[in-house]
Amino acid sequence: MNSVSTTPSAACVAKLLLAYDGSEFHGWQVQPGLRTVQGCLMDALCRLVPLDGIPPGAGRTDAGVHARGQVSSVPLPEEALVVRLRRALPRMLPSDILLREIRLEPSGFHARHSARGRRYRYSMLRAPDPFRRRTHWLVQGDLDVDAMRQACTHLLGEHCFESFCVAASVEKGRTVCRVQNAEIESDHEQLQFHIAADRFLHSMVRTIVGTLVEVGRGRRAPEDMETILRARRRSAAGPTAPPHGLSLEEVHYSDTHPSGQRRGEG
Amino acid sequence: MNSVSTTPSAACVAKLLLAYDGSEFHGWQVQPGLRTVQGCLMDALCRLVPLDGIPPGAGRTDAGVHARGQVSSVPLPEEALVVRLRRALPRMLPSDILLREIRLEPSGFHARHSARGRRYRYSMLRAPDPFRRRTHWLVQGDLDVDAMRQACTHLLGEHCFESFCVAASVEKGRTVCRVQNAEIESDHEQLQFHIAADRFLHSMVRTIVGTLVEVGRGRRAPEDMETILRARRRSAAGPTAPPHGLSLEEVHYSDTHPSGQRRGEG
Repeated sequence: MNSVSTTPSAACVAKLLLAYDGSEFHGWQVQPGLRTVQGCLMDALCRLVPLDGIPPGAGRTDAGVHARGQVSSVPLPEEALVVRLRRALPRMLPSDILLREIRLEPSGFHARHSARGRRYRYSMLRAPDPFRRRTHWLVQGDLDVDAMRQACTHLLGEHCFESFCVAASVEKGRTVCRVQNAEIESDHEQLQFHIAADRFLHSMVRTIVGTLVEVGRGRRAPEDMETILRARRRSAAGPTAPPHGLSLEEVHYSDTHPSGQRRGEG
Repeated sequence: MNSVSTTPSAACVAKLLLAYDGSEFHGWQVQPGLRTVQGCLMDALCRLVPLDGIPPGAGRTDAGVHARGQVSSVPLPEEALVVRLRRALPRMLPSDILLREIRLEPSGFHARHSARGRRYRYSMLRAPDPFRRRTHWLVQGDLDVDAMRQACTHLLGEHCFESFCVAASVEKGRTVCRVQNAEIESDHEQLQFHIAADRFLHSMVRTIVGTLVEVGRGRRAPEDMETILRARRRSAAGPTAPPHGLSLEEVHYSDTHPSGQRRGEG
């Protein structure tokens, strides 16, 4: 289901910065009869402002995937409406969705189309912890973190990521992503994989993580990442890591739609 | 429902150190038809060792209350059975219960009767956070933390805590508790109240916290804690804070049942 573009009548666009615990959602995208983040957001928004289509999300998170920095956008016929959103929207959202910030953007702004980059984090835990079971994948046993870090370096730059994408969802000619950063933070309790790219294919981060863990277990060599990238088929890569370890951390916009600078505080 | 004491046939007792996320349990204590921590523990234990009664808990946590250091005890007819428990029990517990440790204790050991002290933590959050909504009470607005800290000092020492106890559950002549420690850790994100005492009455920590927040809001003076203690009636104290901010952190045993020293590693 595609989001509707900003209509010419919109005077401005409200840019919403959202965090959510994905545990109790069937993902971001609205689906009839299912509890989704976009659905809950629409339910609240449509009571406050005239809604012109479904508010897009910068990254469409799957069921169980979390976000600390998801961005959505809502075209508004007048700037003053942002005051109403800022005041009333936080209390109308369920406790597993947090509206972190609302900013005004010019009428051309679109949460997904205007985005220039996304950053994801995938969290793994080395020993069971009941309090982190919804946000971390439990990966027990020895892991060669140095080998995993070496494997990460092969992801940097512009590559076709078809091998790391759910086969059915490969869009023709849209499989090239430019990875700006791919690194692993590690301590005795957990491993955090951080990846930033201009765009991501479906299940790309989770398939990269599943493959990195195979490298960590010594089942694949770090250099295999190159062979996998060149193969351009999903079967070349490792298994898909479970959704609950993944979080959309940040969305980056170009200078014409700065996210670090406040516009029209309304 | 009372736990059964150690039978004379027990050669030793397995002391279980448990952590659990209380969100999806109807509390610790076994209840027919409801999912409880004790119930899940019994289900797993009875498949591994001959169970002689219900394994007691050092602190009976209410529905929604968490634990990072709950202790239970299981009398065993022979020491060798602890090996079986250590190997098989972790995998037989649901993911929201973690067996942190098993130790062997002499046959007189009882998780509740042998306990000499407990330490609880109550966590409060200053701004909403979807990822901490199950473990923290959201307390927004200004709080005078210094006043709350001053109020804490009045709790130290031996007092009758009837005013901070659910009226119906006051056991006759058993309302005196010796508080060894009561303090507040605070930063810009959260407040943590820590309290250690030889024993706790039902809902005592949560009622103290509800009253401390009233002090923090300026609705009561720190010295009111003394008046409330002297009143010896529940209506003198403030509201009961919600269960999900509470966690049983540690149980302390006397030197005859040391918890810091390993016995019979099996």
